This record gives sequence, C-alpha cells and structure tokens, in this order.
Amino acid sequence: MPNRIPNKEDIVRAHELIKPYINRTPVLTSATFNHLFSADLYFKCENFQKVGAFKSRGAIHALLNLPKEELKRGVGTHSSGNHAQALARAAKLFEIPAYIVMPENSPKVKIDAVKGYGGIITFCKPTLEARESTLKGIIERTGASEVHPYDNYDIIAGQATATKELIEEVPDLDIILCPVGGGGLLSGTALSTAYFSEKATVVACEPSGADDACRSFKAGKIIPSVSPNTIADGLLTSLGQRNFPIIQKYVNEIVTVSDETIIKAMKWTYERMKIVIEPSSAVPLAAIMEEKVTVQSKKVGILISGGNVDLKNLPFR
Amino acid sequence: MPNRIPNKEDIVRAHELIKPYINRTPVLTSATFNHLFSADLYFKCENFQKVGAFKSRGAIHALLNLPKEELKRGVGTHSSGNHAQALARAAKLFEIPAYIVMPENSPKVKIDAVKGYGGIITFCKPTLEARESTLKGIIERTGASEVHPYDNYDIIAGQATATKELIEEVPDLDIILCPVGGGGLLSGTALSTAYFSEKATVVACEPSGADDACRSFKAGKIIPSVSPNTIADGLLTSLGQRNFPIIQKYVNEIVTVSDETIIKAMKWTYERMKIVIEPSSAVPLAAIMEEKVTVQSKKVGILISGGNVDLKNLPFR
Repeated sequence: MPNRIPNKEDIVRAHELIKPYINRTPVLTSATFNHLFSADLYFKCENFQKVGAFKSRGAIHALLNLPKEELKRGVGTHSSGNHAQALARAAKLFEIPAYIVMPENSPKVKIDAVKGYGGIITFCKPTLEARESTLKGIIERTGASEVHPYDNYDIIAGQATATKELIEEVPDLDIILCPVGGGGLLSGTALSTAYFSEKATVVACEPSGADDACRSFKAGKIIPSVSPNTIADGLLTSLGQRNFPIIQKYVNEIVTVSDETIIKAMKWTYERMKIVIEPSSAVPLAAIMEEKVTVQSKKVGILISGGNVDLKNLPFR
Repeated sequence: MPNRIPNKEDIVRAHELIKPYINRTPVLTSATFNHLFSADLYFKCENFQKVGAFKSRGAIHALLNLPKEELKRGVGTHSSGNHAQALARAAKLFEIPAYIVMPENSPKVKIDAVKGYGGIITFCKPTLEARESTLKGIIERTGASEVHPYDNYDIIAGQATATKELIEEVPDLDIILCPVGGGGLLSGTALSTAYFSEKATVVACEPSGADDACRSFKAGKIIPSVSPNTIADGLLTSLGQRNFPIIQKYVNEIVTVSDETIIKAMKWTYERMKIVIEPSSAVPLAAIMEEKVTVQSKKVGILISGGNVDLKNLPFR
C-alpha cells in the first residue's frame, strides 16, 4: 500500500487481503441495554478476533504489504500488549521471526501469550528510551522490519476493516463509538465511516486519566500523554503522527469518562451480554452511561476492541 | 401439549411457538480448542439466551401451553436458580404473577435477579420440605399453576429446541455433549438428537460430586443425590421422573468429571472464547479435557447451558 492516508479502495483491498487470516467477528445486541438507553446498540465484537483483539487485522495487513525479501528477515516491535501478540501470531503464519521488545516488568500472562505465539522476546528496562534503543539494536542486527502498533498506514487500513464489516452488517448507523489510545483503531474507524457509511458520525471515547487525544483534538496539535493513569491499559499511549490528521478530519467529537464508570460498564457487559472484554472496550459504553453522547432513538455502533484481561484481577466490586 | 413424551412434531411446534420470545443463540467455535483437541467443537451458546440460560425456552413454552383461565391465575415454582428468573420473565411477558419460593439463604444476586423480572418472592427455610410446603400453600391460596423446573413435558419440549437449532446449524454432528442436573436440558437434547440428527450420539456430562444421573443410568433406576457437592451449582438436583426414561432410552453414555477440571475448563472458556459461562456450562469441555469422551476427528456439539455467575467470586486461581 502506498505511504499515504488509505483511500476507500485501499481499505477494500486490505479487507480482501486479510480475510483468510482473520475472523469476521459477530455483531451482538442486548435487549437490556437497548431498553435501558432507548437506543439500538450494535457491538462489533473484536474480543472474538484472533488473539482476542482487533490488532490481528493490522498486523496481518502490515506483513502482507512487506516486500518478500524484507518479510523473510522478520518483523519487530516494542509492545507489551495486544499488538505484540498479534504481530507474533501473524509472523508465525508466514513462518518468519517476530522480535518483540518487552519491558522486564511485563505481567507474566502477557509474556506467556507472546511466547505462545512463538515471539522472540528481548527484555529491557521499562522506559520508552530503553524500548526504542533495544528494538533499534535488534533491527540493525537482524534486518527485521519495524511494525509500529498504530503510527503506520498499513496498520490503519487493517484496523479500518472492523468498522467496514460493522457497516456492512448494520448499514444505517447514526453514530459509531470507538475507544482511543494511540489512534490506530480510531483513525481506521473514522476512514471506514467516511467511506462506507451514509450518515454516521464518529465519537471517540477516552478515559479522563489518559485524555491526550481529547486535549490534542481541542488544541489542534498533538499533546503527548504525561504519566497517564487509567484502568484501560490499552489506551495509555499518545496519538500517532499519522493518526492525528485523520482523526482531526473525520472524527466528530472526543469525549472522556471516569475509570469508575469504565469499571461499571465493564461489569455490566459481563453480566448482561455474557462476554469477556478488557477495560478499554468498556469506554464507549461508559460514555453512554455518563450521557457524554446522546444515543436516544439512535442506531449506535460500538467497537469492542478486545478481550485480553487478567481474569484473576477483575476490577469488579 | 399432551401429557406424554414429546414427539418430533411436538418439538417442531414448541419451537414455532416460543420463537418470538427467545433468542436464536449463536453457535461459536474456537480455533484454539479445535487445534488442541484435533476436533471440530461447536458451542451452542445459551449463555446468550434471555435471562442468560436455556431455561427461558422451557418456561415460555410451559406458559404458552397453559389454558387461558389457568394462566391468568399465575404460575409458581420453588427455585433459587435460572428457572426462577426464566419463569418470572415469562410471566411478566404475559402480565401474570410469578410466585417464586426461595430459600432464605439464597444469594442476594439471585434474589435481586428474580425481583428484577417482577417475581413475587416468598422466603422459606432452606430445606426441600419447606420449599415444597411453602409453594403448596401459595398455590392453594392463589390458584396458580406449578411449573416444575424440569420434571414437566412442556419444559422438556421447550429445552429441546436448543439442540434442534444446533443441529439445524451443524447437521452432521457426530457427538452432542450436554451437562446433566435434573435432566431437563439433557432429556430435551436427547429427544432432539433422536428426531433431527442423522447420526449423533449423546453423551451426558456430570460433576463427580453430584453423580446421581451416572449412578441412576447404570443402576437402571433413579438414585437420588445425597448431599451433592460441586462448583457446578446448576447441577445439584436429582433426575426427574419424566426425564429419566427419556435419558435411559436416548442417551448413549454418562461420564463424570472433577471440579478441578470444571474450573480449568471454565477458565479456558473465558480466556480463549471470551464468553462468560457458569460452572455447569464447563462440564462438557471438562469431559473432553479428562478424555472421558473421545472427540478426535469428530464434529462435536456442546451445550453451553448458561452464563449466570457471581463475577466477584470466580473460582479461578
């Protein structure tokens, strides 16, 4: 794919390319929630995606776009989250090495998950500098290609396919709600909504303890996170350079919600919908609960980003 | 419906009757599990059913079969579990009273759930005698109809529709695995398999700490549970009089599994399939894990009975 903002055809092609390697995840509804909020809510369940998160889409798409010679030398990233697992799984499918740099204090459950997909882990000190320099060393040594978790147009086009599927299933959505961290899923969602939906607006939902996207959106320039603090561990990162202009152009609004409501929304989702989601996935429902977005009588699409959570430490009271 | 073992037409009719009031629940698969067990597993997800359990099917069907005059006077049952919620919900739909007798030591979460569906709760001492006599008194006073949770042909025909749907979706199943408690779901599953499947065998799966069905099946007569003890709280009851002959005739085998494996199967289901299930629903997967049933190269249907669980006390280690 060319190194520019993906157009409609790029996303259609991305979808065709990745289809054999990903799940077409179900869109679930809840009569209880619909009744409670007097709206029709459609949950696009990327927790049922390969490796339990939408990240599989972008990772596969990025690898499919690497020239064969480069692909052979492998791929690398620094991440302790879903992107690491998704990249390791994608690399395994293509029988190439995935070099994953992880902070030495990463939870065992995440280390095991990356190992389970065959990722080659290098541990480093838990600072961004250490992560970047360690990865740089590996890439110089191996010739692997770095695949950034979100600041990458192939990744953006891959993540966009989730919302393309959602719109195919429910064409007349009024609003699409999407969590925002680095902006990979959000920028993809915004593009797919602009290209494939007739009327839907896009509202990004962010934890108030990690509100760099909201502040950046208002300021008109990227304001990086400084010591973000939220239960939504997938949303701690700051907006990417390639993601921000797309968000500025195609996202209608960014709202913030409290961790307290995120936890409540998470619990409600387990209880009423009987699905396992990670805290980041509960942020859009929390925005509805806090009435930060008006959904009454509307058809609302909601991106459930993933389901990778430490089940021994669920934050429910 | 006539007061006899439901025939094929009875179950077809039951399905048509209840369709407007229940969810057609999804059949999910897991590439991880399929790989792990070298089999094709199809999970019929009744945790996504109304009130979070298959019990909604039988409850609605029982009410639809009551003569109008009787229906008006309401329905009653003694239960602290999913049947109580299902009956309360069904009664609410038809705007009739549901009298629910619950032991005074029932967990608050279950009491609240029944109240939430508008059930009229009467508390009693936590003995079977107290439950039965309290219900008898209410029925004499109100003229309500007792709806037994499983020892009832309308209930059996209602529960049978879950497996009918599963077979419609995956016609060429080799084996169907079903948990067994009182035998309502199992007898319905056995009938639907006999009527609608070409070749599937039915294997019932039971916790070894509540193995009355297994012992009854072997002995050729009902041997009631004496102080059963298992994490699978939906499977503590003894087999019903109407359920046992159906099970004797149409079930191929009953296997038992340990609570330790049930908990492990439950955790795996949350982790890999990202769905919330109650312990009873994990019993069939536990049977596969303990190799009590041979699934290699087979197409296997699995009844996930429900998803009502106390999320604050998940048994994971």
